[in-house]
Amino acid sequence: MGGGPQETSLEVLLCVLPWPEKESQKTIAEIKEEFPGYEFHYIHEHQYENRSQRGKINVPEDIYKRATVLATLAWLPPSASAVPKLDLIQFFSAGTNHVSKHPIYTDSEIPLTTASGIHGPQIAEWVIMMNLVHSHNYPYLYDAQKKREWRSREGRDVRDAVGQRVGILGYGSIGRQVARVSQAMGSDVIAYTASPRKTPESRRDKGFIVPGTGDPDGNIPSAWYSGTDKGSLHEFLRQKIDLLVVCVPLTKSTTHFLSTSEFAVLHDSNPHGTLVANIARGGVIDQPALVKALETKQIRGAALDVTDPEPLPADNPLWTAPNVLITPHVSGSTKVYADRAFQVLKENLRRRRDGGKLINLVDRKRGY
Amino acid sequence: MGGGPQETSLEVLLCVLPWPEKESQKTIAEIKEEFPGYEFHYIHEHQYENRSQRGKINVPEDIYKRATVLATLAWLPPSASAVPKLDLIQFFSAGTNHVSKHPIYTDSEIPLTTASGIHGPQIAEWVIMMNLVHSHNYPYLYDAQKKREWRSREGRDVRDAVGQRVGILGYGSIGRQVARVSQAMGSDVIAYTASPRKTPESRRDKGFIVPGTGDPDGNIPSAWYSGTDKGSLHEFLRQKIDLLVVCVPLTKSTTHFLSTSEFAVLHDSNPHGTLVANIARGGVIDQPALVKALETKQIRGAALDVTDPEPLPADNPLWTAPNVLITPHVSGSTKVYADRAFQVLKENLRRRRDGGKLINLVDRKRGY
Repeated sequence: MGGGPQETSLEVLLCVLPWPEKESQKTIAEIKEEFPGYEFHYIHEHQYENRSQRGKINVPEDIYKRATVLATLAWLPPSASAVPKLDLIQFFSAGTNHVSKHPIYTDSEIPLTTASGIHGPQIAEWVIMMNLVHSHNYPYLYDAQKKREWRSREGRDVRDAVGQRVGILGYGSIGRQVARVSQAMGSDVIAYTASPRKTPESRRDKGFIVPGTGDPDGNIPSAWYSGTDKGSLHEFLRQKIDLLVVCVPLTKSTTHFLSTSEFAVLHDSNPHGTLVANIARGGVIDQPALVKALETKQIRGAALDVTDPEPLPADNPLWTAPNVLITPHVSGSTKVYADRAFQVLKENLRRRRDGGKLINLVDRKRGY
Repeated sequence: MGGGPQETSLEVLLCVLPWPEKESQKTIAEIKEEFPGYEFHYIHEHQYENRSQRGKINVPEDIYKRATVLATLAWLPPSASAVPKLDLIQFFSAGTNHVSKHPIYTDSEIPLTTASGIHGPQIAEWVIMMNLVHSHNYPYLYDAQKKREWRSREGRDVRDAVGQRVGILGYGSIGRQVARVSQAMGSDVIAYTASPRKTPESRRDKGFIVPGTGDPDGNIPSAWYSGTDKGSLHEFLRQKIDLLVVCVPLTKSTTHFLSTSEFAVLHDSNPHGTLVANIARGGVIDQPALVKALETKQIRGAALDVTDPEPLPADNPLWTAPNVLITPHVSGSTKVYADRAFQVLKENLRRRRDGGKLINLVDRKRGY
């Protein structure tokens, strides 16, 4: 860029990430074009053998001490005093639990932002796929193909999504994208949130939204329900739900949020039977109660990307419960993960430049 | 309804259908409520052993000679003179090829309407499901579940639909619903039609649309292409299509519409590779050329609900081609088929009452 050795960039963007730089080349190129004044460093932290090794990489001090913006998954500088110029840390993870004991988190006021919102499309696709796989009997069709058998089924009993009701437990970025696709398929959508959403403002999605997806203004649900107690939950579950999508965070109040009495409520309200899809955490569902609900046909099936525990042991009865589809916590995977996180960073660089409020800003007290 | 034996209804609705009346009870009840003056007869023609037996049912002459509206799949009265009052035949099939040699078709002017459009939702769901099954590697996940193995894949190489391009070859009711869902998933949609659609009016869907689905005004595609020659087709195929949906009728000009040179064009324009989904007829694709395109990785895969011939013989090389998903012509099946066809009838009863143009009216010369 010319200039003598005395010249130092005002802005230094340091990326310490476990993905090769080329995976994100599209958005990185956009960032370089929009922010030409930034000195750019990309340090590729190679894949870890296990999670405990995350962040244990040596980053040259002469770079990080001049950094103004840090993009990272897990690595952090040793302390706030080691990074006097740093005033934005963009995490490439959805949360910051993994660094919540680090001095930068506990003792500094450096703004922290997350990549929350970038999981919406692929996890919503997983939910839509599993609902279709279940309702179109795809496992039967797949097994027939493997045997090279052209077997039109006796009971062609597909029930398509038109007029079905999708209940979304936790209306965040994932639930909103399930809602968008479900509406396009002709289904009715109802939403459940912890706190009431009575005003248009409260129904808006305030986090990062992958462009062209989601429900930014919260216009899709035909009805909203809320609460953290079982009475409120039951009111929601009584709405004759055909597909129940579980996407609430695991907290004290959502642990075993769905248990024996909830499956009974679902069954009483919907004679067709509900399909329960869980992409949150295994602990949100009381798993032995789920196995019983499947065995007694209280619900028509379950699609689970998360279980309790994980990995699910080979002798766990959930594997052989009727009408259950299980995948090994893969629904968030996507080739474009890193590139999409760079889109959040780009948005925050803009807001930082223009003086706007950062997106996905962590409230250290609240914890997210 | 009271009245003496002399009283005869002005309107007699006769249904001769191979589904039990109760499958359609919801919409039949709506029809009875909206048209209380109709005398209603439902004759349940039991399922055939084979298609050649279709329509071979004895319907009492004293009913059909008074019928003003007939709802049927295949049965027809012997001649127009046998049904002097009949002025609407609502077929419960998408086409009328199966009756095109019958004297009612060849020698009468009784208006014939079809149930075209009611297949959109379930066949579109099949396309969306198969695209997701392919891109999310569901067969791998399903096989792991059967072995009770919690196996997170090495390469978590899911590429979600955001920013992908969906090319729809034949923009009818099925293609429009694929477009609607694809757009909700964040994809770009382009359309191909036989005749040019340069005006807003020409882009409208003029047939029956299942409420809440489809693209009634043709607003979804970002670009339109047209033609019946290969040059026009190639221009469309050069648009870097990620998912190509084949939903054109099989005609002389669409026979082997996709062959060796078309797969080469797809490959040249899209380095990621195209997934080709066919829900039209097997003959639209040159099948040996498809097998070769799969074997040489010119395309990333194929999802086929139709083949040439059907059933596909067990020794056909298509079964073992790489990255192919095959189902036995089941994508149109739905539990609500008959009920949905009654919705078309209801719409036509309204139009007949109000003097409007019938929907899905068959042009006997054109043949559909």
